Amino acid sequence: MFNERFYGLGSTRSVIRELFEYGKKRKAEIGEDKVFDFSLGNPSIEPPKSVNKSIIDLVSNVSPTSLHGYTSAQGDVGVRETIARSINERFSVGINKDLIYMTCGAAASLTISLGALINSGEKVLALAPYFPEYKVFSETAGAKFEVVKPLDDMTIDFDDLSSKIDKSVKAIIVNSPNNPSGVVYSKEIIEKLCDILRAKSKELGTRIFIICDEPYREITYGEEVPYLMNYYDDTVVCYSYSKSLSLPGERIGYIAINPKMQDSEKLYLAVCGAGRAYGYVCAPSLFQFVAKENVSQKALVAEYKENRDVLCDALSKLGYEFAKPDGAFYLFVKSPSGDGEEFSKRALKHELLIVAGTGFGVKTHARISYCVSKQQILNSIPAFTALMDEYKA
Amino acid sequence: MFNERFYGLGSTRSVIRELFEYGKKRKAEIGEDKVFDFSLGNPSIEPPKSVNKSIIDLVSNVSPTSLHGYTSAQGDVGVRETIARSINERFSVGINKDLIYMTCGAAASLTISLGALINSGEKVLALAPYFPEYKVFSETAGAKFEVVKPLDDMTIDFDDLSSKIDKSVKAIIVNSPNNPSGVVYSKEIIEKLCDILRAKSKELGTRIFIICDEPYREITYGEEVPYLMNYYDDTVVCYSYSKSLSLPGERIGYIAINPKMQDSEKLYLAVCGAGRAYGYVCAPSLFQFVAKENVSQKALVAEYKENRDVLCDALSKLGYEFAKPDGAFYLFVKSPSGDGEEFSKRALKHELLIVAGTGFGVKTHARISYCVSKQQILNSIPAFTALMDEYKA
Repeated sequence: MFNERFYGLGSTRSVIRELFEYGKKRKAEIGEDKVFDFSLGNPSIEPPKSVNKSIIDLVSNVSPTSLHGYTSAQGDVGVRETIARSINERFSVGINKDLIYMTCGAAASLTISLGALINSGEKVLALAPYFPEYKVFSETAGAKFEVVKPLDDMTIDFDDLSSKIDKSVKAIIVNSPNNPSGVVYSKEIIEKLCDILRAKSKELGTRIFIICDEPYREITYGEEVPYLMNYYDDTVVCYSYSKSLSLPGERIGYIAINPKMQDSEKLYLAVCGAGRAYGYVCAPSLFQFVAKENVSQKALVAEYKENRDVLCDALSKLGYEFAKPDGAFYLFVKSPSGDGEEFSKRALKHELLIVAGTGFGVKTHARISYCVSKQQILNSIPAFTALMDEYKA
Repeated sequence: MFNERFYGLGSTRSVIRELFEYGKKRKAEIGEDKVFDFSLGNPSIEPPKSVNKSIIDLVSNVSPTSLHGYTSAQGDVGVRETIARSINERFSVGINKDLIYMTCGAAASLTISLGALINSGEKVLALAPYFPEYKVFSETAGAKFEVVKPLDDMTIDFDDLSSKIDKSVKAIIVNSPNNPSGVVYSKEIIEKLCDILRAKSKELGTRIFIICDEPYREITYGEEVPYLMNYYDDTVVCYSYSKSLSLPGERIGYIAINPKMQDSEKLYLAVCGAGRAYGYVCAPSLFQFVAKENVSQKALVAEYKENRDVLCDALSKLGYEFAKPDGAFYLFVKSPSGDGEEFSKRALKHELLIVAGTGFGVKTHARISYCVSKQQILNSIPAFTALMDEYKA
């Protein structure tokens, strides 16, 4: 009776959201501090003080009809100019406002970019481990979705990648710093990836686009994150302020198309069309202006770094195995039993909410989101200890 | 190379948006006050003072990580409870929070509802005159789109409606107060509509859903607007705060499913799935809470009423023909030549931006949005006079 695909998606929900909702219930039952919720990437760090200051300034000083009115569908001109300038200052790519499209956050950036790029039946590749909704968004665009395996250190298995590129491949999603592993792809890895894509598309007579999903660009612990536009012409960057400004609920981000891309302005039009067809009239106006005012703000990563260090030290001592994350706020831990689902389920008995790796394309692991209070991490160590003791018993 | 449908939609743009963008350019060329922009439904009335007060209160008093954090995908529980209560107080329908889904505004409400209801190839009916994007949103859902003609007074031609209902019809979009005509469907019209739908679905052995698009519910000048859930079980209400709270850029609204609908909870799950698949993670969080705080605010319609009266009086005296609007802030005027496109083009030479009726499904008319300053209306009268003089010459 109702749409089957959407009924299915609504009934199953994302594993992450499912666990998050369970956590909310469980906290109500046994108390907030008794549940160690590591499920969701909901930043625990407050936005920079300048964010709330901007909101109050804008509300106090700008005419409400223009502050809360429709902007152009692609976003306010001044906002897009400021963002283009900021990108150029940092990465020297020569982009202008006419290749920036403001969105309702990263998920909208991705659905719209995929919609604009894909014709039904073409293929999208994701590099495991990958954010599970990539599959959902790709299928909304009518794409086939295929996953490239990782190496043990969660970087790219280039042999597997090469074997999976055929004529139908239209796009590959690159996410670095990575959710769920926290891995940052080095300059060398990015160069090798781009060389392979260029060689393959030449060999096959196709074009393969990189969709660079980078909400975690600013959440790094020292590693440089290469800007893909400088390595590969056919690059679309999907950005969100959710993590850098700790505003995940406000849904504000953008799509930036590489000015070096042939037909970049045509892709931009397709982006405008996809946004329109999916019902995105414009990105939320107040937060467009907030993003503009805070374009130079640095994310406050010191707390995340401390969380990472505390968590990595403790889990490492307990015998858990993982690649130490260089960015984002996730730790991707190998299940002591080799089965991530079993690991996640067993953890629940200790009130530890960690997400099985299956949905991320790696069945052997589980994800711990450490964008939580340091106190929660410290409080959870006995539970992680008891959990490991069960495996050793 | 890129997605053909979306490239097409991005290249042509909506006629309304096109004219709006032209107006912005033209104002820069010859001066803001020289261009009479009646193109867009961008409310000219400021939001109630309580709106900006709520924003400042929330930002000052609520923890920023919860104020700006993810809510549940369907919206914050407290927000949905408040909205359900408000609907019940006004319309006694017995809805609860589990049938309310917060959205990024009316366009999102529509794309998500259509997505949830439609299986590819089913048909959506719209009652002309209709908001042009209905076609775009219906086609995104994979629907065929068909238009029912209006009577001369812009109400429903029931004979035409009956003749167009076949087995493939899954939904009909009802928009009252109407954009672009300002017509409010009376209780008698709604009852007749519902009787026909019930009889036809019984005869054909199908279910036909009403999607009630009502961003203008609160913008009325005395007429009662029947609440569809009380007349027809298979009703989905798509609401937006854009017009009632003058917040069109902030993208905040909701979907409400009739609790009397059989399988209402299944449709709700399909709604959740469609929202997820289109990349709507949650409705903007700050404005969810702003909507909650302002759920009892009345729209400030006195200015619109004055605009309507001034405009109707002046245009009527000049010899323009139209049905006097009982709601919304649009006047749908018959072209003196009988050709709406020609009317809109000729008006442009007088710096009058009015939208041809073609896209609304009525080729003989054009739409005037009077959600502008009264001064603009007064200033535009000489231009409307000169325009009519041309037709009389």
